[in-house]
Amino acid sequence: MASHVAGPDIEKLIKLLARLPGLGPRSARRVALHLIKNKDQLLVPLSEAMRVAVEKVQVCETCGNIDSASPCTICTDTRRDPSVLVVVEDVSDLWALERASVINAAYHVLGGTLSPLDGVGPDDLNIAGLLKRTAKGEIREIILAVNATVEGQTTAHYITDQLQEQAKELKVSNPAYEPIRISQLAHGVPIGGELDYLDEGTLLQAIRSRKAFE
Amino acid sequence: MASHVAGPDIEKLIKLLARLPGLGPRSARRVALHLIKNKDQLLVPLSEAMRVAVEKVQVCETCGNIDSASPCTICTDTRRDPSVLVVVEDVSDLWALERASVINAAYHVLGGTLSPLDGVGPDDLNIAGLLKRTAKGEIREIILAVNATVEGQTTAHYITDQLQEQAKELKVSNPAYEPIRISQLAHGVPIGGELDYLDEGTLLQAIRSRKAFE
Repeated sequence: MASHVAGPDIEKLIKLLARLPGLGPRSARRVALHLIKNKDQLLVPLSEAMRVAVEKVQVCETCGNIDSASPCTICTDTRRDPSVLVVVEDVSDLWALERASVINAAYHVLGGTLSPLDGVGPDDLNIAGLLKRTAKGEIREIILAVNATVEGQTTAHYITDQLQEQAKELKVSNPAYEPIRISQLAHGVPIGGELDYLDEGTLLQAIRSRKAFE
Repeated sequence: MASHVAGPDIEKLIKLLARLPGLGPRSARRVALHLIKNKDQLLVPLSEAMRVAVEKVQVCETCGNIDSASPCTICTDTRRDPSVLVVVEDVSDLWALERASVINAAYHVLGGTLSPLDGVGPDDLNIAGLLKRTAKGEIREIILAVNATVEGQTTAHYITDQLQEQAKELKVSNPAYEPIRISQLAHGVPIGGELDYLDEGTLLQAIRSRKAFE
């Protein structure tokens, strides 16, 4: 009886909503009720937005971003500097950097990190696509904006090796070839961070990378 | 720039998701990304479930419940006792009682509580509908399962007055008429509740309504 409290159609909606990250069975019910009570203001437009997403949203074949167009809005944005490529693990990282408006460059989404234990090897990530882009010779800098985790750093090292190998090969066919500059995000104390709550690794990096007081 | 990180279609989806209860702008983005990444398993069926909800879900004209049919699944359930009517403020309260499987009766959803300060009077609630149902003479008990708030109790008192007035009138035309029994939920210590964390009102009710130890 309790499984069909609200009729099969609403129960189905609740069941699907409960699979969204951050929602459980109870909050899914609250969301379903809120949607139904605000049918014209919320349920109808959200249903429509999802239909559009189903139809139009795709992975950008250039950078791996998610958008309604491929190449995506970022790849086709002529106000961006195409010579700088920010390499990220996931679309959510790309979004985080864009929200912060910290760099006006192009992106490359790897789609994960190397993780031998989980069976994720180089072929499972979009590394071949990255090397194809760097081979064209238009990119001057690669910023490895991966997470500061073991997997992220392993992936960063692997990509650096691959890029250096590619640079050697390109140098053979073109002696004037200038290798791409490879950089990574700075480590240190996050803004607003209290030293007491930071791990030793972060404190070590913060001391080692210390700068002249401004 | 930051407002169109992910293209207008996805941004629109995120904006609508952020209006769901319990979700903020950040979690809405996470949900949108999760939906897009799990297109076939989640986005497509959820989009379809919402389309069905838009088309079919309606308010039951008998009890005020929300369902794909009117009269609703509960009102048409012949295994329920139609002589007992549980009066609740909101559909979410009906769902909560049904989940607990504590009573196999019919329901009546008021759609809120009396709240003069917010301009909610008797005509804004489904009280006329309730009196129409009780006038038929088939209901033997009304359980006022309203919240234990000032507004809930005010509403319970108002409904009780209305039912008693109706009983008087019905008695005039039919001297054999038996008035409907009106009851309310018991107040007391919730199961698992610690006395230390309970308010004085609850403790007072728990003492006043104390029962022989079983």
